[in-house]
Amino acid sequence: MPHYTAPTKDMQFLLHDVLKISEADIPGYDELEPDFTSAVLEEAGKLSVEVLAPLNTVGDEQGCKLENGVVRTPEGFKDAYDQMRAGGWMGLDADPDYGGQGMPYLLHSAVGEMFVSSNMAFNMYQGLTHGAYAAIHAHGSDDQKATYLPKMVDGAWSGTMNLTEPQCGTDLGLIRTKAEPQDDGTYKISGQKIWISAGEHDLTDNIIHLVLAKIPGGPEGVKGISLFIVPKFLVNEDGSLGERNSLSCGGLEKKMGIHGNATCVMNYDGATGYLIGEMHKGMRAMFTMMNEARLGVGLQGYAQGVVAYQNALAFAQDRLQGRAVTGTEAEDKPADPIIVHPDVRRNLLHQKSFIEGARAFTFWGASLIDRAHRNSDKEADDLISLMTPVLKGFLTDKGFETTVLAQQTLGGSGFTQEWGLEQFVRDARITMIYEGTNGIQSLDLVGRKLGLNGGKTVMGFFEMIKGYIKDNSGHEALNAEFLEPLKKASKDLQQAAMYFMQNGMKNPNNALSGSYDFMHLMGHVCVGYMWAQMAKASYEALENGTSDKEFHQTKLATGRYYMARQLPATSMHLARIESGADTVMELEAANF
Amino acid sequence: MPHYTAPTKDMQFLLHDVLKISEADIPGYDELEPDFTSAVLEEAGKLSVEVLAPLNTVGDEQGCKLENGVVRTPEGFKDAYDQMRAGGWMGLDADPDYGGQGMPYLLHSAVGEMFVSSNMAFNMYQGLTHGAYAAIHAHGSDDQKATYLPKMVDGAWSGTMNLTEPQCGTDLGLIRTKAEPQDDGTYKISGQKIWISAGEHDLTDNIIHLVLAKIPGGPEGVKGISLFIVPKFLVNEDGSLGERNSLSCGGLEKKMGIHGNATCVMNYDGATGYLIGEMHKGMRAMFTMMNEARLGVGLQGYAQGVVAYQNALAFAQDRLQGRAVTGTEAEDKPADPIIVHPDVRRNLLHQKSFIEGARAFTFWGASLIDRAHRNSDKEADDLISLMTPVLKGFLTDKGFETTVLAQQTLGGSGFTQEWGLEQFVRDARITMIYEGTNGIQSLDLVGRKLGLNGGKTVMGFFEMIKGYIKDNSGHEALNAEFLEPLKKASKDLQQAAMYFMQNGMKNPNNALSGSYDFMHLMGHVCVGYMWAQMAKASYEALENGTSDKEFHQTKLATGRYYMARQLPATSMHLARIESGADTVMELEAANF
Repeated sequence: MPHYTAPTKDMQFLLHDVLKISEADIPGYDELEPDFTSAVLEEAGKLSVEVLAPLNTVGDEQGCKLENGVVRTPEGFKDAYDQMRAGGWMGLDADPDYGGQGMPYLLHSAVGEMFVSSNMAFNMYQGLTHGAYAAIHAHGSDDQKATYLPKMVDGAWSGTMNLTEPQCGTDLGLIRTKAEPQDDGTYKISGQKIWISAGEHDLTDNIIHLVLAKIPGGPEGVKGISLFIVPKFLVNEDGSLGERNSLSCGGLEKKMGIHGNATCVMNYDGATGYLIGEMHKGMRAMFTMMNEARLGVGLQGYAQGVVAYQNALAFAQDRLQGRAVTGTEAEDKPADPIIVHPDVRRNLLHQKSFIEGARAFTFWGASLIDRAHRNSDKEADDLISLMTPVLKGFLTDKGFETTVLAQQTLGGSGFTQEWGLEQFVRDARITMIYEGTNGIQSLDLVGRKLGLNGGKTVMGFFEMIKGYIKDNSGHEALNAEFLEPLKKASKDLQQAAMYFMQNGMKNPNNALSGSYDFMHLMGHVCVGYMWAQMAKASYEALENGTSDKEFHQTKLATGRYYMARQLPATSMHLARIESGADTVMELEAANF
Repeated sequence: MPHYTAPTKDMQFLLHDVLKISEADIPGYDELEPDFTSAVLEEAGKLSVEVLAPLNTVGDEQGCKLENGVVRTPEGFKDAYDQMRAGGWMGLDADPDYGGQGMPYLLHSAVGEMFVSSNMAFNMYQGLTHGAYAAIHAHGSDDQKATYLPKMVDGAWSGTMNLTEPQCGTDLGLIRTKAEPQDDGTYKISGQKIWISAGEHDLTDNIIHLVLAKIPGGPEGVKGISLFIVPKFLVNEDGSLGERNSLSCGGLEKKMGIHGNATCVMNYDGATGYLIGEMHKGMRAMFTMMNEARLGVGLQGYAQGVVAYQNALAFAQDRLQGRAVTGTEAEDKPADPIIVHPDVRRNLLHQKSFIEGARAFTFWGASLIDRAHRNSDKEADDLISLMTPVLKGFLTDKGFETTVLAQQTLGGSGFTQEWGLEQFVRDARITMIYEGTNGIQSLDLVGRKLGLNGGKTVMGFFEMIKGYIKDNSGHEALNAEFLEPLKKASKDLQQAAMYFMQNGMKNPNNALSGSYDFMHLMGHVCVGYMWAQMAKASYEALENGTSDKEFHQTKLATGRYYMARQLPATSMHLARIESGADTVMELEAANF
């Protein structure tokens, strides 16, 4: 069975040495002193290691079962859920007015990584609730907030997001679910939604579904979509549960992974729904929290990589096979541990250098979200909007790749269920698909985000990196090992953006054919930028006589690997982009 | 449920327009006229589409079951196996002296691709038999051949390869299974073997296990390993089945994919075994057919990509979502089919351009094996030995990647079991691991094959490409679109080889840290070389007024994609290689 270790030390390094959060001028960050964050992370780690991780295999093997309309989650999930509730984890970053602890989103993200690494399918139940909470919080009426939020923050009730229908996923303009207005101001919701994560389960007393539907007579397409609260049980005036709403789980999807989470077909049969926000403005309401939701999925991607890497590493340090080419290392053993072999090390370092860079990128992104929300900082909001598709698309592609690499480290054992690596691969796979496929992320990046504020936001990002390199190039080692490669990668990125500007106008396909490569190119630049910052922090610690030399030397060695062996991907992506649309668009659809 | 279409036309193009096999001076190739190969491929395609493909999902869902020592294969497998036997497919390329049809290995490979695409787990039963047949054929005594081969060629009996033990996979020197000599010249085999594909099942009357074991008193390590025939049922003088041998299946591995194939723990408890070939020369005997076995696994990798692509394409042509950015294409429909979107096309072309190139590479490799065996051509034998790790490692990595890309084309549907894509991903995954992990392939390539004949073999390969470019550069379009990119990629490859020569001597880690990238770099050059040849054939066909213009124009368009958008990976691999061993070897094992 796989194991999990909470990466508290790495997280503390990022929070305090790299992001220096308690010095940041973001309301609430002043509380985030090292001792405090350490205590929170230790507690979250304990819950993850002791309660959630042991249920990960159980959840995969048992899956969820639908019997007579009731979904039973795997053994132990209910108990673990109650422990998570009791610990107050579900409302960590929620509004104190509704019982939350009001902590920054950054801390929620750090804790979330642990929960996801230890049991992604389990953590989705509260993850979905968090999303539904955020939408109601942002767009609900005071009454709606008072009715639903305290119970959701507390974890007594959970939430869902109902978007997809059989005929539409990406293109929500095709939605058919209807919401017919009633005399009492409510709506009767009818239609079928599919792939509804946590749509039905036995962990909570009530489930608050957020459902996209069309009010008859409204505008065509996405402009005629409204958002509704459709609770499983209607709520009485006094807050107690009333009658069962006319909705049911019509089936569970059999899927490649995340078996512990119930993916439901939801049938709404004239169910009572309550409009949230304005009529026909449902898309806006649903996507208000998109940056957070997508960052959360990017986090899932690399978090699966984290636990997969830990298990690959343990195997590589333990498994004896062959001898080091430069001479026997473990004289007393029948063979050397496989970590002596260069190709095994290459594989492990590929994993390690990605996940540590990805964590830094995600934490930075989370801090931008805090800055955007807590300081009403438009520049931060724009920057995180630019970064969001990269965080989601790049980190899930590479996170999945990391699980595959980790599985490879184990050889044949990686293919067996016993070692658990193959589950990480199967679970991570969904992150490239949901919350907008990675192709859609790249479209969002190139088709919309590059043009944000007439291109000023992306130019500001380029300038930020340029400035960082300039400000720090006086440090010789940092410059040679980190800043020079970053400069080269950043130039590739700017050249690609320039290509889009010069060629995308006359033919948008020139830009859209290169969108996926651009997303990866930008991902590498962002993670490279993170490594430069981590390296700077570690060089400073070493130069200031840190007592933990090994930690910082390891950090530098890992970063050097990234710069030397991952960053060169940028030139490949640039070459693909500059090859233009011709090879992509030439073939007739019928001749593929 | 997924579908499969036999790619007969693409195969005929390769066999006759590109490889021009019936003109090749290889014994047996003169029979391979277009009409004949077409008839064989059509028949194999029919069996694949009608019998094997419908059982692929069944095999995955039911898996194999062990009850009281008996393994039951999924419903329908036995019947399909009998149909395959009746069609004579199992002995297609086997020695006519033992009932085979004596066809070239190339034809066996083409047919094999269809069988693997339609049902990889099922086809492994006969695939393992083929490997065991080949080892006995090459190293068995006349008696052994007469006893076992006719039944194996006919499919009445199957075969297995028993190498791995719990403490050793790659490093077979650690084998503990013992073979104790008996007075009658037989051996008593005792030990445990794991991950034995098709180790026990209900498809055949007998199973002929080939087992690696150590005869006490022999040399240490791999030099003391011998190879034994250990039949499930001993065979009487008259060829009838005698008593049950002392061996049993101790368990079935639960694994990520290929559920339809039984992966067995095999316990040998003083089982009667017969030495094959020379004492202590078992490794050599087992690995005689290594080029074929590894090419066969490379084929599995891309063959899963083939069927995955077919299903992704069908989805993309059918699924309506969004509108083309350059204007609505399907006015009469609520949305355009997603194949109008540049990023969907990019994804599909990535798949298509790889699998068609991979097929060409594999067929070329199979023809080299025929040339090596049928013409006793040492140069061909050396060349295929050089290519083998690339065929295995590159084609399985990229084949798996192709299944993942195909899954992505389907969005959420790709993650559900219903559409079947996720099974292709899970099944393809094993190909990167077994028959020597891809890391081991890269070690074989860089550590051994580059130095073959003092480097003359690889230099000959470089010269072959150079010569091809020179000979054909007069064709302007071919030169610009195919030969120039190939020249650039080939230069990257030579520069990488040069780096190894200049830096690998003083420190072998400089070569071994780059071995994996070298394998991919070389894979791209090989597939690029194949595309150049296919393009030449298609240009010729078009210039000669072919009646099938669309086919050849499509071929050229697909090839152009590969050259413009896949081949640029070579510069990334070169950069990684030239970064040397430092970043890979620097970190202490304990500090990862």
